[in-house]
Amino acid sequence: MNKTILLHKRPQGKPSLENFKTVSEEVPTPKEGELLLKTVYVSVDPYLRGRMNDAKSYIPPFELNKPIQSGIIAEVVDSHLQDFKKGDFVSGMLAWKEFQTSTGKGLTKVDPKLAKLSSYLGILGMTGLTAYLGLTEIGKPKEGETLVVSGAAGAVGTVVGQIGKLLGCKVVGITGNDEKVKLLTSTFHFDHAINYKTTPDLKAAIKSSCPDGVDVYFDNVGGEISDAVLAHINKFARLPVCGAISLYNETEVPMGPRLQPILLTKSATMRGFIIGDFASKFPSATRQLAAWLNEGRLQSRETIAEGFDNIPQAFLDLFEGKNKGKMIVKVGE
Amino acid sequence: MNKTILLHKRPQGKPSLENFKTVSEEVPTPKEGELLLKTVYVSVDPYLRGRMNDAKSYIPPFELNKPIQSGIIAEVVDSHLQDFKKGDFVSGMLAWKEFQTSTGKGLTKVDPKLAKLSSYLGILGMTGLTAYLGLTEIGKPKEGETLVVSGAAGAVGTVVGQIGKLLGCKVVGITGNDEKVKLLTSTFHFDHAINYKTTPDLKAAIKSSCPDGVDVYFDNVGGEISDAVLAHINKFARLPVCGAISLYNETEVPMGPRLQPILLTKSATMRGFIIGDFASKFPSATRQLAAWLNEGRLQSRETIAEGFDNIPQAFLDLFEGKNKGKMIVKVGE
Repeated sequence: MNKTILLHKRPQGKPSLENFKTVSEEVPTPKEGELLLKTVYVSVDPYLRGRMNDAKSYIPPFELNKPIQSGIIAEVVDSHLQDFKKGDFVSGMLAWKEFQTSTGKGLTKVDPKLAKLSSYLGILGMTGLTAYLGLTEIGKPKEGETLVVSGAAGAVGTVVGQIGKLLGCKVVGITGNDEKVKLLTSTFHFDHAINYKTTPDLKAAIKSSCPDGVDVYFDNVGGEISDAVLAHINKFARLPVCGAISLYNETEVPMGPRLQPILLTKSATMRGFIIGDFASKFPSATRQLAAWLNEGRLQSRETIAEGFDNIPQAFLDLFEGKNKGKMIVKVGE
Repeated sequence: MNKTILLHKRPQGKPSLENFKTVSEEVPTPKEGELLLKTVYVSVDPYLRGRMNDAKSYIPPFELNKPIQSGIIAEVVDSHLQDFKKGDFVSGMLAWKEFQTSTGKGLTKVDPKLAKLSSYLGILGMTGLTAYLGLTEIGKPKEGETLVVSGAAGAVGTVVGQIGKLLGCKVVGITGNDEKVKLLTSTFHFDHAINYKTTPDLKAAIKSSCPDGVDVYFDNVGGEISDAVLAHINKFARLPVCGAISLYNETEVPMGPRLQPILLTKSATMRGFIIGDFASKFPSATRQLAAWLNEGRLQSRETIAEGFDNIPQAFLDLFEGKNKGKMIVKVGE
């Protein structure tokens, strides 16, 4: 049989296991021009929360009682397509199913000899590209500048901070527990890391870690953490807005201090993006990331959950900050 | 005698005449290397409100019991400097005094034969440059796009809208009375203008005026008007933040809906600026504005108050929206 995870109920506020439902279907038989894929690794990402709402956004919402989709690495187990053969591994936006057919559209072959398979969902996949392109195309960090990243121990944050260091910045990370603080300053060589949950005065902590002010703020979280960073931005600061995980589960429109006065006073630029905005730069960005990874100048960190049934829980754990680096579910071999 | 207007008390919230004090001094005698200047036209501008606070910003605050400064056109009445002679007219950041000396630093000679003197404070001065450079460098409007401008009947707004039309945009202005609505659509050829004070549902009015969404929002006001425009921005919208007059007199940090989610969903760019950020482009921008003005493709509109003693009241009138176009005080001949 073939397990499939559906969107069962739309969440109000924080999602829970009740929003998902696992059903069993028959394993499909690929037709002419189709592949049969077996899921190996599933990416769970904060942005999926937005697709669970019935709201217009940059991608359509998930439909009720239809499978959730996300980035998946799968193995080709049967092929009626010239370009793919049994035993190939592919990456693409696929359904949360153990087995599924595909026409091959939107799939990219990935090579398990060049890098471990899970890294194609992380540092060599969407999160690595998001970190690299958001930072370089919008943040435009210059040597000697100060870069602050929130959600610093997450999939994107860990890569942003490391690239900031490679580009000669002073890097300060904001994260939610002391173990992650240690990870950021040791494994990832951040200059400072701040635990926002235990720091009594976040503004003061940022001021103390960034005596020269903040030139680039790579924002993964939004909300009060970002307010505290904005209090210390320099003239001409650049603020890539990559995510707003602290706001995704709000049921009312979240309110906060208006930003126009500070952007005006500091001639600062705040720009939202999704990685598809930079699609033309994926090949060169992937080459750069792979080169740094092979040279050992970039560390990839993953939190791997095990088992198809645990995909929803792994997704929910993102909102509790339980992951270090990229959260991935290992489903098969 | 020589009247001078000082900052007497810092305003809390909305400023009033009590914040200013007029004193009389002797007319100074220029020394070697100095000019004696007689004030002719005084520019009053919303941004001066920020300098009345004792707060760090992009320019230092005015000092208590010292003269206010703003853009001024003055006549050289005595000169001990080679580059200036009696009868020349100059433009510069000068004190609210009938007469003052200057070393010539920061002064620009202006030619009353090329354009009327007051226009060097408006369409050929700081406000024209602000409109042109904010729009073209940040807004980057493309032919056929929709441009919305708030504070549309003000000094900057009237120029932004006209340039938008010259560049082939559909232009919608937001303003505060019906007379201004008419001015914008007749004299300045805006496609639509909205009176935000009488429109029962500003969001709906913007939606109706901008059926293809908003590509560029030139923001002079901030606050709830901007919230309504932001509800209709398109993917990749550009939002130059030029002013926030609706927030300048707030005594508490103004609160509003957080912007990160909408900037993220729309891959939109919000950027604050002051005109000094683009100083290297002043010569080419001034040439373009003067050319359009001479060709009759750009209309300059001014509200002129009369008399040195009326400078503070003219400034206060800005916050009541009493001006159409640039607010200027005529002091001498």
